[in-house]
Amino acid sequence: MEICDYLPFWSKLTQEQQQTLERGVALYHASKGEIVHNGSEDCIGPLIVVKGQLRVYSYSDDGREVTLYRLFERDVCILSAYCMLNSLQFDISVQAEKDCVLYRIPAPVYKKLMQESAPVANYTTELIASSFSDVMWLLDQILYKHLDSRLAAFLVNESELNDSLQLKITHEEIAHHLGSAREVVTRMLKYFQNEHMVEIARGCITITDLKKLTQVAQDSLR
Amino acid sequence: MEICDYLPFWSKLTQEQQQTLERGVALYHASKGEIVHNGSEDCIGPLIVVKGQLRVYSYSDDGREVTLYRLFERDVCILSAYCMLNSLQFDISVQAEKDCVLYRIPAPVYKKLMQESAPVANYTTELIASSFSDVMWLLDQILYKHLDSRLAAFLVNESELNDSLQLKITHEEIAHHLGSAREVVTRMLKYFQNEHMVEIARGCITITDLKKLTQVAQDSLR
Repeated sequence: MEICDYLPFWSKLTQEQQQTLERGVALYHASKGEIVHNGSEDCIGPLIVVKGQLRVYSYSDDGREVTLYRLFERDVCILSAYCMLNSLQFDISVQAEKDCVLYRIPAPVYKKLMQESAPVANYTTELIASSFSDVMWLLDQILYKHLDSRLAAFLVNESELNDSLQLKITHEEIAHHLGSAREVVTRMLKYFQNEHMVEIARGCITITDLKKLTQVAQDSLR
Repeated sequence: MEICDYLPFWSKLTQEQQQTLERGVALYHASKGEIVHNGSEDCIGPLIVVKGQLRVYSYSDDGREVTLYRLFERDVCILSAYCMLNSLQFDISVQAEKDCVLYRIPAPVYKKLMQESAPVANYTTELIASSFSDVMWLLDQILYKHLDSRLAAFLVNESELNDSLQLKITHEEIAHHLGSAREVVTRMLKYFQNEHMVEIARGCITITDLKKLTQVAQDSLR
């Protein structure tokens, strides 16, 4: 697939704009685990996921992390281009969760297009609104939902993403994803094990009752 | 002040676009406490605060509320026009915190402008990015900061907004603002009282040591 296939506004660009974009864009390979964008240190511009999976997360001064949302193939990461927008006043980082192939559009190239073209500007608005919606969902989870249902929802989602009931993930990593502490996650996992929903082994969690876990994800234990 | 003075993109519109906007816009008076936008029930379009103060908040099924951010004179409320953007997938409400005079731009009028004009689209992106930044700040507070500093920050901020050390607000209302429970807020307020930072009376909190409270707001008690 070419760059034009990923951008719905392509046909609304002038030929000159198309050429500028084609000349500016670069393929970028990121290894699993690599930090492709790190807070306010760099403004690399929008990233298109050609292959792989990205994790967008926030972090605190003392090293805690929370996954805000994930991006999959054909998704576009706009927060890595935060310097294009004056009003984006927060730092996030982006990590490759799998080996990734990415298209990278330099921030100045994209910014110029945005200023010239209403379709590009409106597309950008939708991207920001979509990220915003993901974060609002998370805020909702944190404010109004209990950790039990959040943890259950996380495990069910991981299982779907990996197409497996065996999840190779540590309690520490789960705690990072949920913005919680390892101890809290471990306690809740043990509770789930006692309820025969999962089996815990070193570095691996096996879902033994997906139906029940899905119920907890939807309704909470309490 | 005219509508053109509130919109930085005004001079970049065609004469026809300016006329459409002027014909569509309406002055709207909202009384203190009035809900001017209520979740997905209505899509009233962007609101410009001419006079007064708006509160944008999220809410749960069981009646809990959290203030996401506030809008002051000359600010523009864009989330009341969520139907203009396909990717805005969450419900918030907007309440007048003081008697308000608002300009209201009908959603279809604004949406048409956005589609035609890159300056309008880019202005909208900045508005969304600004709201997004406010919510990210809140998420940060909730995830990484303790309630003591959040409560202290809230009281200091209220005092500045009202230009008074006497705050006429109930513990219940504070809990709504902070997404916490009344009991938790009451306990923390009593702690503050014991530390001689505030004095609590029925329906009124008096800040007695603004300097110390400001310190707690910045550094947390722990």
